[in-house]
Amino acid sequence: MKLAMVDDRIASFEDLDPVHFDRGLYFGDGVYEVLRSYNGKIFALEEHMERFAASLAAIRITNIDVGVVRERVERAFKAAGFANAKIYFHATRGSEPRSHTWKPDLKPNFFLTVSELVDNPQEKAKGIAVCTHPDWRWKRCDIKSLNLLPNILARQDAADRGYDEAILVDDAGFITEGAGSAFFAIIGKALQTAPLSANILPSITRKFVVKAVKNIGLAVEERCLTPKQATAADEMFLAVTTKDIVPVVRFDDAVIGDGTPGPCTKAITAEFRKFTT
Amino acid sequence: MKLAMVDDRIASFEDLDPVHFDRGLYFGDGVYEVLRSYNGKIFALEEHMERFAASLAAIRITNIDVGVVRERVERAFKAAGFANAKIYFHATRGSEPRSHTWKPDLKPNFFLTVSELVDNPQEKAKGIAVCTHPDWRWKRCDIKSLNLLPNILARQDAADRGYDEAILVDDAGFITEGAGSAFFAIIGKALQTAPLSANILPSITRKFVVKAVKNIGLAVEERCLTPKQATAADEMFLAVTTKDIVPVVRFDDAVIGDGTPGPCTKAITAEFRKFTT
Repeated sequence: MKLAMVDDRIASFEDLDPVHFDRGLYFGDGVYEVLRSYNGKIFALEEHMERFAASLAAIRITNIDVGVVRERVERAFKAAGFANAKIYFHATRGSEPRSHTWKPDLKPNFFLTVSELVDNPQEKAKGIAVCTHPDWRWKRCDIKSLNLLPNILARQDAADRGYDEAILVDDAGFITEGAGSAFFAIIGKALQTAPLSANILPSITRKFVVKAVKNIGLAVEERCLTPKQATAADEMFLAVTTKDIVPVVRFDDAVIGDGTPGPCTKAITAEFRKFTT
Repeated sequence: MKLAMVDDRIASFEDLDPVHFDRGLYFGDGVYEVLRSYNGKIFALEEHMERFAASLAAIRITNIDVGVVRERVERAFKAAGFANAKIYFHATRGSEPRSHTWKPDLKPNFFLTVSELVDNPQEKAKGIAVCTHPDWRWKRCDIKSLNLLPNILARQDAADRGYDEAILVDDAGFITEGAGSAFFAIIGKALQTAPLSANILPSITRKFVVKAVKNIGLAVEERCLTPKQATAADEMFLAVTTKDIVPVVRFDDAVIGDGTPGPCTKAITAEFRKFTT
């Protein structure tokens, strides 16, 4: 008999819920999405489903019907009944005894949560503080995978030092993105953000930020900044699904601009708001 | 009410086993070990427990008593009753609603399996084939963490192409290690292996291989090889806990030595065997 142990309790393999043998747990062998709703409507559902499909394909999970997942997302959102909801879901390759290679016919596991999203107007009004951290992530950050240990370690380190987010800096000395957010600076009248590459998650919010920026007549320059260049920026903000645009007023020890959310950030936020209403 | 969904079934958070909210699943926020026994005795238990403690400390899980874990390992091993057993265990930071930062008082989760290990004398007698793959892993591979997606993708790619293991090559063009093994070459009368660094898992088997190599009077040179240098090696082998020493006779398209396990590899294996009996 194969034997397992959960905390202090011995059990046979057969007696355990298959979730204990989830490849998501053994290897982080799965991908995820986070969506939000504004006033009863899920924002950018199609874009999230497209990215989810791309993540699945990138790690070669081929037997998930994304249409079924979309239906589940909508069903759970309705059942929860929150006007402003945060929806998290992941799919893993499935459960089996631990093996690096996988069985081709494995049934994927799906897990989703819906919780109420409470906006934080204070953050938007006053801005947040961020600090830099080495980018320890793997080389395929374009895949939204469950391998997030470097992200959470960086974020916790930031929190312990009194900062709201960690901004990741690669070996070449360039900012890639935040541990859980996309990174933007305004220099002159142009938005600066890293070009999409294997090191950058293709943020859905980023896409709408770029659209908003163009709508209000600012330029968009896709380039990577050093922390020194970022420190000298006129304005700075992050984009994250659950909070959309969050102004940054402190970057490591430096105050950004006059220490309050800048005019371009406010204008972009107002323009972005049009997409969500 | 917060709502969850497992596959197609809607449930409340309260109705679900906490394993569904394991940070190990959300983030790969945990570390693991794999041990084996030879003829009823666990090999290198203390070394594995020391490495486990180092992994826990590196990701800042501070509330696990490694002595308790050691006792569980021994208890489960005895209960399973396999003379030659494979013992896997992991500990994660614990279960909580998904949040990048963690609650300081979270109770860790522990999971262990014991299964019978069946040796593969064919592999040892004939040797295996390996292929190179880009090293996509994160920058702290010295931590034995649950973030293993790059490892399993590389290994599966190798399997699909008919190879037994993927040998990872970093951006600078040097071999780091195997997707699930340590990598060694014999050039002249010297063992070649990568020096331990943040990019290399401190393999327990490697430690005993180095000891065996010194015992039989060969030199040990810690340096990184390029695939081209490796192809020209006289002999090649991998080290992995469950199989100890596995000769390699094919490296990408190249035959290593005369295509059979070489004399140094055999001598090292014989010397290693003394540690396990």
